[in-house]
Amino acid sequence: MTKISAYAAQESGAKLERMPIDLGELAPDQVEINVSACGLCHSDVSMIDNEWGFSRYPMVGGHEIIGTISAVGANVSHLEIGQTVGVGWLSQSCQSCSSCMGGSQHHCRSARPTIVGRYGGFADKVRVQSIWAIPLPEGLDPKSAGPLFCGGITVFNPMLDFGLLPTHRVAVIGIGGLGHLALKFAKAWGCEVTAFTSSMDKVEELKKLGAHHVVNSRDNDAVGKLKGRFNMIISTVNVNLPWFNYMSTLAPQGKLVQVGIITDPMPVPSFSLVSGQKSVAGSDTGPPATIATMLEFCARHDIAPQVEYFKMSDINSAIDRLKSGKARYRVVLTND
Amino acid sequence: MTKISAYAAQESGAKLERMPIDLGELAPDQVEINVSACGLCHSDVSMIDNEWGFSRYPMVGGHEIIGTISAVGANVSHLEIGQTVGVGWLSQSCQSCSSCMGGSQHHCRSARPTIVGRYGGFADKVRVQSIWAIPLPEGLDPKSAGPLFCGGITVFNPMLDFGLLPTHRVAVIGIGGLGHLALKFAKAWGCEVTAFTSSMDKVEELKKLGAHHVVNSRDNDAVGKLKGRFNMIISTVNVNLPWFNYMSTLAPQGKLVQVGIITDPMPVPSFSLVSGQKSVAGSDTGPPATIATMLEFCARHDIAPQVEYFKMSDINSAIDRLKSGKARYRVVLTND
Repeated sequence: MTKISAYAAQESGAKLERMPIDLGELAPDQVEINVSACGLCHSDVSMIDNEWGFSRYPMVGGHEIIGTISAVGANVSHLEIGQTVGVGWLSQSCQSCSSCMGGSQHHCRSARPTIVGRYGGFADKVRVQSIWAIPLPEGLDPKSAGPLFCGGITVFNPMLDFGLLPTHRVAVIGIGGLGHLALKFAKAWGCEVTAFTSSMDKVEELKKLGAHHVVNSRDNDAVGKLKGRFNMIISTVNVNLPWFNYMSTLAPQGKLVQVGIITDPMPVPSFSLVSGQKSVAGSDTGPPATIATMLEFCARHDIAPQVEYFKMSDINSAIDRLKSGKARYRVVLTND
Repeated sequence: MTKISAYAAQESGAKLERMPIDLGELAPDQVEINVSACGLCHSDVSMIDNEWGFSRYPMVGGHEIIGTISAVGANVSHLEIGQTVGVGWLSQSCQSCSSCMGGSQHHCRSARPTIVGRYGGFADKVRVQSIWAIPLPEGLDPKSAGPLFCGGITVFNPMLDFGLLPTHRVAVIGIGGLGHLALKFAKAWGCEVTAFTSSMDKVEELKKLGAHHVVNSRDNDAVGKLKGRFNMIISTVNVNLPWFNYMSTLAPQGKLVQVGIITDPMPVPSFSLVSGQKSVAGSDTGPPATIATMLEFCARHDIAPQVEYFKMSDINSAIDRLKSGKARYRVVLTND
């Protein structure tokens, strides 16, 4: 039985306040983690503010967690106390459905997100099913690695699953917490990389992150001139853009991969799909084995999220910073 | 120099009338074909009626052509006079762009459709670039094979290119000229096959064509009950359906492949894409090598279009029959 100290919202939109929570007994397939750092993602704020309508209170966010294992359940033999691990959007799956058995645990219909109906990483401790605690390889800085576990895997997984090749031209729309990692991954992947951004003051910075080219996403003429260019576009935005124009920048068999949730349906012209055999696809997070593969890739290519640090006790200021849209590119809370 | 006799429309929507057309000299890379039969496709009618705004008159349709080679150009060595061949939607490509060199000649930006800016198969003779005249293998009936070259390849090519496996569950929406061939292909492919149709009087017939299950496409409840079922849906319709509902019938990583042109944009909910890593894709025709592969597949599996025959001289009645929506499932004109 463990009592943890968590930063919880008591109702929709409330400031977070520290409170003790009793987690009961550790389940046989779980591990318990001493949280050292935790990224702050837009979906934490959406859940705190009950934007999606299924938040329960007290609500404890935090799903880009880094920490060391403090306890292992009776059935866990592949992890040990003291090991440094990370946890992302999901922290439990059934392990017996075809998705789980097939290595796509993130598609398990009863997979449970870390912060939905359970308590996340804005706390001193967190518990997850052991397969969702992924050991951090040598060479990654635990302090900044948290955002890889949600923002990172969300853009890394579609690169793998939708067949991005080093010979491809790839574009990223929207360079924030997810997009800046997509630029780094695509550069290390060997691709030609284009960043679409509405902040043209970032040009030099985006080139340092990996972009060979930077294009103003609001300049329809500039976008339209790239006709037939990209094999893959990864869109991290959560608003509709003139998709017809972006679809025209895809090469034959090119894919526009949407990873952000847009409230309204995306209006996709069928002619843009049919002509040149193009696709609009979506992708969300990834399975444990791919998270581990991503971490190895990051260690080999010296890829780390570019973050701004706040103390966990200063979490409400950190949320204000996130909401300002000015964070470059992810906020990470360190436990104090 | 060849004078041909063609069935031409002199203006938008006109009845077709026989007229002589002078084709001039045969180009070195072309072959000339004595047309024996030609399928009648909805896009012939769209072009005759200038629905897409780029028809030129006199307009000669016909792009599901079967015939025997009557002349070969100076540079053509792989085909010979008397050989039976077929021709589909495209009949010329540049042969030097990356798509052409890479075996995706149907994505060549200067590829020329058989009936756009040139004369199609509603005639006694037609000319095409030699690579677009595909020899008919032994075992296929030339009289009924025409519709394979447009309707057939349009649904066969995405099965190959989007990775349909014999272990997959596949659904076909809209069982007409294209859809009935999709059912036959998917059955022979080894898949579990579901037909979505608005004509529930066809149930037994669709089962004979290859469907294991037949579902009323207008019954949203019946569609919704198939949640998570299909690895691929091939949609041949040209109107928007409640895509949200159909997307929910896709398994994780499932693909909805649209092969018909819908005038309005398709409203695609991003949540339906992101959750389960699904795609909405499009596909149009296919390259010569894949057409040849399809023909071999048809010969091996005894697959032929189910057609209604009209004499070429009765072409205006054939068009009326097509427009009635009652043809099962494709109209073929035989030269008289």
